Amino acid sequence: MERRYLDDFAVGQTFASGRLKVEAAAIKAFAAEFDPQPFHLDEEAARGSFFGSLAASGWHTAALTMRLLVEGDLKPAGGVIGASLELSWKQPVRPGDELRIESEILEVRASQSRPRQGTIKVRTTTFNQKGETVQILTSNVIVPRRGG
Amino acid sequence: MERRYLDDFAVGQTFASGRLKVEAAAIKAFAAEFDPQPFHLDEEAARGSFFGSLAASGWHTAALTMRLLVEGDLKPAGGVIGASLELSWKQPVRPGDELRIESEILEVRASQSRPRQGTIKVRTTTFNQKGETVQILTSNVIVPRRGG
Repeated sequence: MERRYLDDFAVGQTFASGRLKVEAAAIKAFAAEFDPQPFHLDEEAARGSFFGSLAASGWHTAALTMRLLVEGDLKPAGGVIGASLELSWKQPVRPGDELRIESEILEVRASQSRPRQGTIKVRTTTFNQKGETVQILTSNVIVPRRGG
Repeated sequence: MERRYLDDFAVGQTFASGRLKVEAAAIKAFAAEFDPQPFHLDEEAARGSFFGSLAASGWHTAALTMRLLVEGDLKPAGGVIGASLELSWKQPVRPGDELRIESEILEVRASQSRPRQGTIKVRTTTFNQKGETVQILTSNVIVPRRGG
């Protein structure tokens, strides 16, 4: 599939992705390296916590969302290169959950100072296998212009 | 060191962290799992890209920042549990960089609906070993009240 330049994006376009399953071992491995808190590391410790049972680090959910974005249908020319973003976690990701994303183009802006590129604002919603929203990410992605 | 409840936080307080060094192998391993784009995976491919040389995924920088937060001096009672955030990447993290953070409390709010908890808004700046800002994260963290 061809990659998309700034000129190919328009407000309202939507893009889908494949799916990624999250197992308990991966949740614990990510947490051990980046978010070593009891409720991400150990089922027993999670029981008495805010989360009630083992939950993925929100940053793990975000990283998996990035993988879905990179391999999904958005395909900006030059790659998925974010500059800034807003993110909120709506509910925890649990062992066995299967994630997918839907992205919608909110804005398309040519750069005033750099005529060869621009920015798209993309809202990416991450869903679990029950169709529940687990994360909403709104990011500004740098995209080259066609022939730029 | 004791953990802090909502009542222990005040606007303007600052908190530091230790340091984490980022090696090329870790940059590539993170990218292979979560952000498989050429400029995060391979020195040669990175040379012709937006980044000019191998650069860590921004999500890797964010995940390392989380580790520094969890192990740093902020120490909210109940753990570092984010609900929503804004994040911007100011410059790439490169192989050999050593990261540290500084966090500042921007707001302290008791919850209207949940008397046993509240939220602190924290701005966390991630610096490299040259003192350059690589990331700014502003996050809303859920914190229990003392005796809550």
